[in-house]
This record gives sequence, C-alpha cells and structure tokens, in this order.
Amino acid sequence: MVEVVEDREWLGDDKRDGGEEAEDKRLSATEYVFRNTEVPSWKEQLTVRSMVTSLVLSLVFNFIVCKLNLTTGVIPSLNVAAGLLAFSIIKFWTTALHRMGFIVQPFTRQENTVVQTCVVASSGIAFSSGTASYLLGMIPRIADQAEVGNTPNNVKDLSIGWMMGFLFVVSFVGLFSIVLFRGMMVLKFKLTYPSGTATAYLINSFHTPKGARLAKKQVSMLFKSFSFSFVFAAFQWFFAGGDDCGFASFPTFGLQAYAKRFYFDFSSTYVGVGMLCPAMINISLLFGAVISWGIMWPLIEAKKGIWYSADIPASSLHGIQGYRVFLAIAMILGDGLFHFVIMIITTTVSLMKRKSESRSAGNSTNEGEDYDENIRTEYFVKDSIPKWVGVGGYAALAVVSIIVVPLIFHPLKWYHILVAYAIAPVLAFCNAYGCGLTDWSLASNYGKVAILVFSSWVGLNNGGVLAGLASCGVMMSIVSTASDLMQDFKTGYLTLASPRAMFFSQVMGTAMGCVMTPLVFWIFYKAYPIGDPNGSYPAPYALMYRGIALLGVEGFGSLPKHCLALAVGFFVGAIVINVLTEVLKKYETKYRIYRFIPNPMCMAIPFYLGGYFAIDMCVGSLILFFWHRASKQKAKDFGPAVASGLICGESLWGIPAAILALAGVNAPLCMKFVKS
Amino acid sequence: MVEVVEDREWLGDDKRDGGEEAEDKRLSATEYVFRNTEVPSWKEQLTVRSMVTSLVLSLVFNFIVCKLNLTTGVIPSLNVAAGLLAFSIIKFWTTALHRMGFIVQPFTRQENTVVQTCVVASSGIAFSSGTASYLLGMIPRIADQAEVGNTPNNVKDLSIGWMMGFLFVVSFVGLFSIVLFRGMMVLKFKLTYPSGTATAYLINSFHTPKGARLAKKQVSMLFKSFSFSFVFAAFQWFFAGGDDCGFASFPTFGLQAYAKRFYFDFSSTYVGVGMLCPAMINISLLFGAVISWGIMWPLIEAKKGIWYSADIPASSLHGIQGYRVFLAIAMILGDGLFHFVIMIITTTVSLMKRKSESRSAGNSTNEGEDYDENIRTEYFVKDSIPKWVGVGGYAALAVVSIIVVPLIFHPLKWYHILVAYAIAPVLAFCNAYGCGLTDWSLASNYGKVAILVFSSWVGLNNGGVLAGLASCGVMMSIVSTASDLMQDFKTGYLTLASPRAMFFSQVMGTAMGCVMTPLVFWIFYKAYPIGDPNGSYPAPYALMYRGIALLGVEGFGSLPKHCLALAVGFFVGAIVINVLTEVLKKYETKYRIYRFIPNPMCMAIPFYLGGYFAIDMCVGSLILFFWHRASKQKAKDFGPAVASGLICGESLWGIPAAILALAGVNAPLCMKFVKS
Repeated sequence: MVEVVEDREWLGDDKRDGGEEAEDKRLSATEYVFRNTEVPSWKEQLTVRSMVTSLVLSLVFNFIVCKLNLTTGVIPSLNVAAGLLAFSIIKFWTTALHRMGFIVQPFTRQENTVVQTCVVASSGIAFSSGTASYLLGMIPRIADQAEVGNTPNNVKDLSIGWMMGFLFVVSFVGLFSIVLFRGMMVLKFKLTYPSGTATAYLINSFHTPKGARLAKKQVSMLFKSFSFSFVFAAFQWFFAGGDDCGFASFPTFGLQAYAKRFYFDFSSTYVGVGMLCPAMINISLLFGAVISWGIMWPLIEAKKGIWYSADIPASSLHGIQGYRVFLAIAMILGDGLFHFVIMIITTTVSLMKRKSESRSAGNSTNEGEDYDENIRTEYFVKDSIPKWVGVGGYAALAVVSIIVVPLIFHPLKWYHILVAYAIAPVLAFCNAYGCGLTDWSLASNYGKVAILVFSSWVGLNNGGVLAGLASCGVMMSIVSTASDLMQDFKTGYLTLASPRAMFFSQVMGTAMGCVMTPLVFWIFYKAYPIGDPNGSYPAPYALMYRGIALLGVEGFGSLPKHCLALAVGFFVGAIVINVLTEVLKKYETKYRIYRFIPNPMCMAIPFYLGGYFAIDMCVGSLILFFWHRASKQKAKDFGPAVASGLICGESLWGIPAAILALAGVNAPLCMKFVKS
Repeated sequence: MVEVVEDREWLGDDKRDGGEEAEDKRLSATEYVFRNTEVPSWKEQLTVRSMVTSLVLSLVFNFIVCKLNLTTGVIPSLNVAAGLLAFSIIKFWTTALHRMGFIVQPFTRQENTVVQTCVVASSGIAFSSGTASYLLGMIPRIADQAEVGNTPNNVKDLSIGWMMGFLFVVSFVGLFSIVLFRGMMVLKFKLTYPSGTATAYLINSFHTPKGARLAKKQVSMLFKSFSFSFVFAAFQWFFAGGDDCGFASFPTFGLQAYAKRFYFDFSSTYVGVGMLCPAMINISLLFGAVISWGIMWPLIEAKKGIWYSADIPASSLHGIQGYRVFLAIAMILGDGLFHFVIMIITTTVSLMKRKSESRSAGNSTNEGEDYDENIRTEYFVKDSIPKWVGVGGYAALAVVSIIVVPLIFHPLKWYHILVAYAIAPVLAFCNAYGCGLTDWSLASNYGKVAILVFSSWVGLNNGGVLAGLASCGVMMSIVSTASDLMQDFKTGYLTLASPRAMFFSQVMGTAMGCVMTPLVFWIFYKAYPIGDPNGSYPAPYALMYRGIALLGVEGFGSLPKHCLALAVGFFVGAIVINVLTEVLKKYETKYRIYRFIPNPMCMAIPFYLGGYFAIDMCVGSLILFFWHRASKQKAKDFGPAVASGLICGESLWGIPAAILALAGVNAPLCMKFVKS
C-alpha cells in the first residue's frame, strides 16, 4: 500500500508543476487576511469536538484504505476529502449549537489542521500496517501459492492481539525520529512539501468567507456523489448472489475479454480513484494491462507444458502466476532502485548547495512573503517540543521494540532489530527530505530493500521469509510516518497551528490507527477469502511481498523457465523508462514529451491483477476530461469532491456488506452472463 | 396510436397554461424583425432539398412512431425534433455549399415550415394507419387470443399490397375535407392551435440570429444524447441473446416485482418520452399500473377456478387477460365519451357566442399584433386554393373509396362507406375546431365509436368484427388528418408560408406516409412476433380494438364473470374523474388541485401492459425535475432536444437490430437473472 503514498505524491506533484509560482503569490497575503483572527493557544486547538471528529473520520478512512488495499493497492490522496469533511462536520456542529443559543468556541483553521493531521496519521497506519502486504504475506494461504517456504517457521497466522501489539511498538518510533528535524526541514531548508502546502491552502481558503461558501457547495456535491455511490453499491449487492454473479463480473467487452480481465466492473470507488489520479497514471495502468494480459500472458500460456508443467494449479508461482508475480516485482524493484538512487543524489547535491549558498541568501523574498513568514515562524517556534522528548522517546521505544518484536516473530533476533533502528533515522531523514523536495515518498521501496536484506541474512531454514516480511514492517513504519508527518508540520506552519498541538494530534492519530487498523481489517478478513487471486479481495501485494522475501532467501532458483531473463529485462526496462523520462524532462522542454511516458510502477500492478480496475480509473479520467471541456472551473472546484464522494460511498457500503456476509446472508439474485 | 395525438396535445396544453399571454407579446413584434427578409414565392418554398430532407426525416420518424406504436402506443410530440432536425440538416447543407463557393438559395422559415409539415403529415399516417391497432387487430394471431370471432370472414391476413392501397384511398380524403375550412378556422375564428403556434414560434426563433445560435447548441445536445442512446441500445443488444435475457428484463426491484411487470427496463426511448410528456401523465400511468398489476390482478387471480376456468391459456380473453383488456377498454371509452360530449358542447357554445359577438369585435388587438396580423393575412390569402379543388377532390376520392374499400374488406358494403363519408366531414370539422380551441384531437375516440356502430350494424356472422375495424380506419384517417393539418396551416400562417405550398407539402407527406408506413411496419412484422403479450412488441391496442369490435357484435356476453360489473364501474369512474377535474378547474383556483388528478386514459394503458414503461417515463420526469432544479433555463432550452435524441437514438438502433433479427443473427451473450 505504500505504492499509494507515491500516487498521492504524484497528485501533489502535478498540481505543483503548473501552479507553484501562482500559488506562492496567492498565499503571499494570506496572513494579512487573517490578521484580525485570534490564534488560540495550543491547548485550545485540541478540543474535544476535534478529537471526536477525528475518531469518526479515522474510522471511515480506515475502512476506505483497508478496502482499497485489499482490492488493488492503489490508493489516491484522501487529504482533500479529510480536510473538507473535517471542516463540514465541525462547522455544522458549531453552527447548530450556536443557533440553539449555546456559546461555542469559534472554529479555527488551526483546529481544522489538527483534525486533518490526526486523520492523516491514523489512515497512514492503515497504509503502513501492511495488512494487505507484508503481514498478509505471512499467512499459510498466501504461502501455499508460492509452494516454497510454506514451513512452520516461515508462516504465521494472523490474530488481532499480536498485530495490535506489533503496530504499537513500531508505529510511534517514526514520530519521535522526525519531530526533532521539523525546524530544520520547514524553517531552515524551507522545503516545499507540495501536498502539505496544498492542504494548507485548502484549509486557509475554507476559513475565509468566500472559501466557506465554496466549501459548502463542495460538501453538497460530495454528499450527492456519496449517496449515489452508496445506493448504487447497495443496488449492485442484490444481484451478486453466487460466484461470478453481479455487476462486478459484467463482461462489458464480451466473454473473451472478460477471461483476460478486461471489463468495466461498475466500481464507483475506482472511477473516483481515477478522477483523483493524474490521467497518465491511469493510462499507464491500462497500458500495463494491455501488454501483460493482452500480449505477454497469452504468449506464455501458449508455452504451457514446455516452459512450465501443465498440471500444476493455476495459482502456483511455478506456473503462469509466477511470471505475473515476478515480472511485476522486477518492474517495481527497478523503478524503486532508480528513485532510491536519484533521491540520494538529489538530497546530497541539495544539502551541499545549501552549505555554499547559506551566506548569500535572504534577499529573494518579497514583502508579502516576508510578512507571512515572520508571523508563521513566530507561531512555529513558540510552542517548542523539548529535544529530550524526541531523543528519549525514540530510544525508549526502540528498546521496547527490540524486546517485543523478536517475541512476536521468533526468526528475528534482537540484533536484527537493533541494526534496523540504527539505520532507520538516516533513511527517515532522507525520505522526509526527498519528499519535501519532490513530493515522493519511497517508504515501500525502503521496505522492499529491508525484505531482501533481512530475509537473506536470516536464511530460509531459520525462518528468513517471515523475518524479512517483519523487518519490512519495522522499516516501513518509521520511514513512512516520517515523511507523512513532516508534510503535516508544513501544513501546520502555513496555518499557524501549534507544533505541540500537531504532535499531540499525531500521537492520538497513530494510536487510533494502531487500534482501528487491525479491527477493520479483521472484519474483511473474517467475511471474505482475502488473498484469493480470483476473489473480490485479491490483495495483490501480499503475494508480491512474499515473492520478494523468497527471492531474498532462495535466489532466483525458484523461478519458472525463462522467467529470470524476462524479469531482468523488465527490471532494466523500468530503469530505462525512468532515465528516459528524466532526460526528456531536462532537455526536451518544447513539447514536454516526458508527460506521455508511462510510469513503470503503475504498469506493473495490472501484471498481477488484470485491467479491470485500470478501465474503471480511465473511465474516471474520461469523466473528468469531458467535465473539464464543459466547464473548467466547475471541474476544478468540484471534481475532487465528487471523486471523494464516489470513493467514500461505495467503501462505506463495505460495512453493511461485510456484516451481511458475516451473518451468512446471501444476495437474493444472481445476474449471470452466459453464451447464448 | 391516436391516443398519442392526445398526448401530444397535452404537451401543447401544458405550455399554453403558463405562457399564452407572454407568447403573444413575444410574437407581437415578430414580423417587424423579419421585415427586411424577402418571402419567396410558393413554388420557391418547395425546393428539391426540402423534399429530400422531408423524405429522410419521414423515414426516421416513421421508424420511431412504428416502434412506439408496437411497444406501448404512447407517443410524445415529435414536432420539436422534426422542426429542429429539418433546420439543422438544411442549414448544414446550405452552409457547406456556400463555403464551397456555390450560389445557393437562402434557407427561409417558409421552407422550414414546409419540411416540418411534410414530416408531420407522413408520420401522421404512421399514427392513423392503425398498423398497431385496427389493422393489426384483424390478424388471426390476435383473433386467437379472443377466441370468439376467429372465423374466416372476421380475420384478414396482412399484406403490404392491400395495406398500401387502403391507406391511399382513405388518407387523402381528410386533406381535401379540411382544406376548404382553413380560412374560417385560422382567419375568421382565430383559433389558437397551441401546438401549431408553438412550432411556428420555434421556427421563427431559429431564423433570427440569436435563435440560430441556440438551435446550434440544441442540435449539438440532441446529437450527443442521440449517440449515447444509440450506443447504449447497441450495447444492450449484445446481452440479449435468448428469452428473458438482457437489460429489457432487468428485475430492478426484485423477481417478485418483475413478475408483476414492475421493473426499469433501461429503455432510453421511454425515458425520453417521459421527459417530453407532462409529469402528471407519467404519474397517471404509474398509478394505473399500481392499482391494476399491484392490487386488482392479484386479487382477481386469487379467484382463478371460481371466476374463470383455471385451464384456459394465459393469453385467452376468457381468463385474467379478459379483465385486463375489457377494463382498459371501459376506462378508455368512458374517457372518450366524456371528451366527445364536452367537445360538442364547447364547439356549439363557442360558435353561438361568435355569432352574437361578431359585430362588436375588432378593437382588442394592440398595434404590434395588428402589424403582424395584416402581413400574415396578406400572405395567407395570396395563394388561394380554389374551392372546386377541395369539393371535387373530396367527392372523387370518396367515390374511389366507396368502390375500393368493399373490394378489400368484403364484409363492408358500398352503403356503409357512403354513410361514413357523409358523416365524416362534420366530425372532421368538429375535431379540427375543438383541437384549435383545446389542443386535443379525439380522432381515436371517433374511430372507436365507428367500430361499435359498424360492427353491430354488420353483425358477427357477416364479418362484423372485420367491418368494424375497417370502418374505424376510414373514420380515423379523415378525422385525424383534419386536425393535424389545420395545426400546420396555423403554423404556416404564423411563418408566412404559402397555403398552396403547405397543401402541396401535405399531399407529398401523405403519399410518403402511405408508402413508408406499410414498408416500415413490415420489417418489424417479419422480424418479431408482433402482438405477443409477453414479447418485446406487445402492440397493446391491437387486442383492445378487436375487443371493442367484439363488444359491438356480441354485446357483453363474451366477458368473464363479474367483468361487466367491473367494466361498468371503470367506465363510470373515468367519467367521474373527468367531471371532477373539470369542476375543480373551474371552481377551485387557489391550489389548483385538478393538476394532481390522474388522467383516466393514461391509467388504462398499463392495465394491459404493466408498469415497466411507466417507470421508464417517471425516470424521465425525475431527470427533468432535477435538471430544472439545477438550472431552469438550461432544462427548458435543452430538455426537449435531449429527450428527442434519446428517442431517436434507440429507435434508430431498431433498424440494424431488425436486420440482424431477420438475418437470424443472435446476440452473443445472455444476461440472466436467477434466484441465488
């Protein structure tokens, strides 16, 4: 699911491309507009109502993220929806109380930021908890698909108890590792953090009179599309009684295309996701589906009995499924490696430049920016968090982790965890810095590297697969939290929210996430056959992450024939595509062809899943395209709200649907498609 | 299908309610705007391009009307679509030629009116030809359902030859019967003809610069919804391979509701029809469906074996089907009788009033109206049609008819036809006059009365059923043509089109209709099992019209138990509802409750068919309702265009679908709904 974080950043990236300068100017007078609005103290920013709102929204977003994780692993930015919903709930609440004659504390943008931060922190845990990747990769059902490594010390059954414990010991570390650096990143380096900046811009705009009007309309649009999506999902449910029944198996382009997983499955969620993701992401996904399911797999399946044995089950990694999984892994790893290297180079170059320029800076800002900056800096340093809290907290949590994690995962020893915690802050710093520059979080890539390193260190016979997957969790939690929360600090800086209130809200959000994520996941896990490649919840990353661990312990011996050669090709291909993109970005500025080069990581996801969700997402892009043509301003103002509504509505239907499934209630009808 | 004409008029009626005065004022300066535009001579108004356009549009509209006839018999006003499409085709053609450097005759509103008239005349034949009512009621397959009267001299197999001949001898008579009265109706009585006036307003507006811009946008909207509807219909086709397959049998509200014919069948045609019909019509249909299929039929079916024999086929008129048909007939006849009486009273009162007021008139018009009126009258009387053409034509055609019709239908003798032609002009005058006042055409009611009269005159043993149905055709053709064409003369008067050009165009259109209608019908007739109550083309009026003929020859002896009592109840009920409406209309002007009283004739149609098309139409009303709420002006400007597009698109897919069916090509897939 960390792939997700990257998707989210692209969105930010996209916005930034065109509007960085314009946005700076727009923001330049912001604090002047707010000059007569009092900023509450940090304790006043943490209200009961904001905590309740955070709890409710966290639950909703946990459901959404969990569902997306388990279906395709592609998750769009939900920041806008979080900010918007937080605003509308508290605004509604305060207005209602005020009308009834109660005296209520005014609703400030600082409070809004605090709620948004809490929701982001808690749904961040739903990302980084690995319930659909490294944790799910541990269960016997997934191990079975890989055949090799299905030994008692390489699998672990899930249970709410140890999952919650594990999350509690690993999730807070990242928080403390990064809190020390906030001054450096935000004030000294003045990093951009495009997503954080965009969110701050949104929150600031909501709290000006004109912004509130627009927000009201947006909320109304969100509610409409939410209702539509919810009702439509409920309607679909009635026709899905039985296998291969209902809208989700609608052979839109005929039965042959359906067999190759090309169909529109009427999922409003993914139409909404497609509306939030840049068009090129969606096209990359579709392109990946076409070259894999359209061309490669049929060619490889023609070699059945020659390249691989004809009598192994379809889900075995030694058959066609092996090509799907390992070629996807190769492409993802190639893409990850490229960005890893690029990020280290960028960070180093940037830090070196800063040193040499530090004396000559200071005269490039205009008056408006100066005004804003002074006020913002003042509030940002006012409520400081003592250094000992950061260092002490990190050390204490690391010690707890070093003791507890090996108790949960026997193959991991205390020295493995110690090594991980020694390297982690450096990587966390790198990721947070890189994210501030480029809006890309590479947490999942750090996690994958951790799998390879630790699983080969421990070895297959000592439970290396399990060790690798668990260490991925340790690493990813730190690295992912670091960049997520630094984004929030930037948002707080731009909305004058107190860092102390922010930190408290992050701690609360993380705690909520650690409790909710396993619980929400458990509902799905008990109600549906999670991880079944042909089911509704294939959870593609579970097998992929386990595949990486297998590569770590076994080398390439377990791959079917020619799979290694193809994988190397795709690995190199991913790097070449990225290099090409970067070169074009730099030297071909006329037509900006680089915009039309597909993204390798996106291409890889449908290798395993097929093209159906890519088609949904392209439908989302198409809707947005026609909407843009009809009315640019409206599409811009309401597109994200409508998309969020589509996602939230269908995802929320997931709750009653899961309850019905748990209660053993079957849908009354089956809409079937047969040859006539 | 004449029920249709009434639907059409209601639309006009609705428009008129709110906007009569406003419209008068808007039109008041019309001719002043056009004062510098030359009016071409009557021969120049009849261009080759207008004839070609008429031919193309006539074919399209014939298909649409034929399809609507055969499915439910509810047909909305297509005048707007005809005027709009005529404008866009000729405008496109002349602009294209002009750009290529050719010198072209300018496109005038007179030419536009001529095309519109021709299309209306030809699709009027598709209404009045009875291919889905009295003619279809003659075939053995329909006679079979009624059991009684299925004797050789009471049935007649259809063939293109005699149908075309029959239409040619009966359809032109109406034209000549009415042409004489045009001066009286339009100039002397100054009748309103709301539909004709609305069409004229539309055409006039298209030919002003601003109107042309709006028309362009409307055409673009029409094209978009047309494309959507066509593509969606084609998409649906792929999933309809087999019985009870596809979207048309989608049990939207569950299988139980589906068994009672309550479901949304995804027909864009009827969604469009619903958008064109006033909401109250759609609600009346739904209301009728609920009280019949929801309440009455289940209650009656519970008496199976008591009220009627349990072992007769489901389609027999002696079983449950008998209740459906005869209660519908009772309600339709009750409604018809009421309007027949009301119309005669209104006509008499109005004519008497005129006589007494004729001296005191003349000072009620303002200057603008005077200006318009003078110019319009000048053009209306300029190209007169000699009286001898009217009288001679009528006499000659009547003689031909008296000779030919008994040759086609042996049970009818020459004196029957002579009587019909002696009464017809009076009825035609009544209908045209009433239509000018109220926008209601009662042609179908005159036809039904003719069935009753002539079938009982001839008697069952002498082929009374066939005679009744045939005489219905004779009567309806005259009466329906009369009111339709007088509407056109009003349009022509308001657009300065020459009456001579109009008359010529009407003759052309009628001829086209007489040739096309049987041909188009034949395609459907050969491709599908027309008249099968459970098929796609149940043609509800066929059995109903035959049922009326049976009542005429047999009395009420053939009805199942208690059916007569119920029928009397519904007959009286229809009259009571109408009386109530009229009383409220007159005396309760505050809340105008009469607007919420359902229309009896509309309630009767679903008695036979079930509620599915009523649900489609209510969806159309809902769409329009929400569109109105979002943007009133846009809904008003583009609603009719979008609706026309929806209707045209799916209807046009009927052509390839019929060809595929004729070629024996089955859809590849079957979307089935089963209990899970």
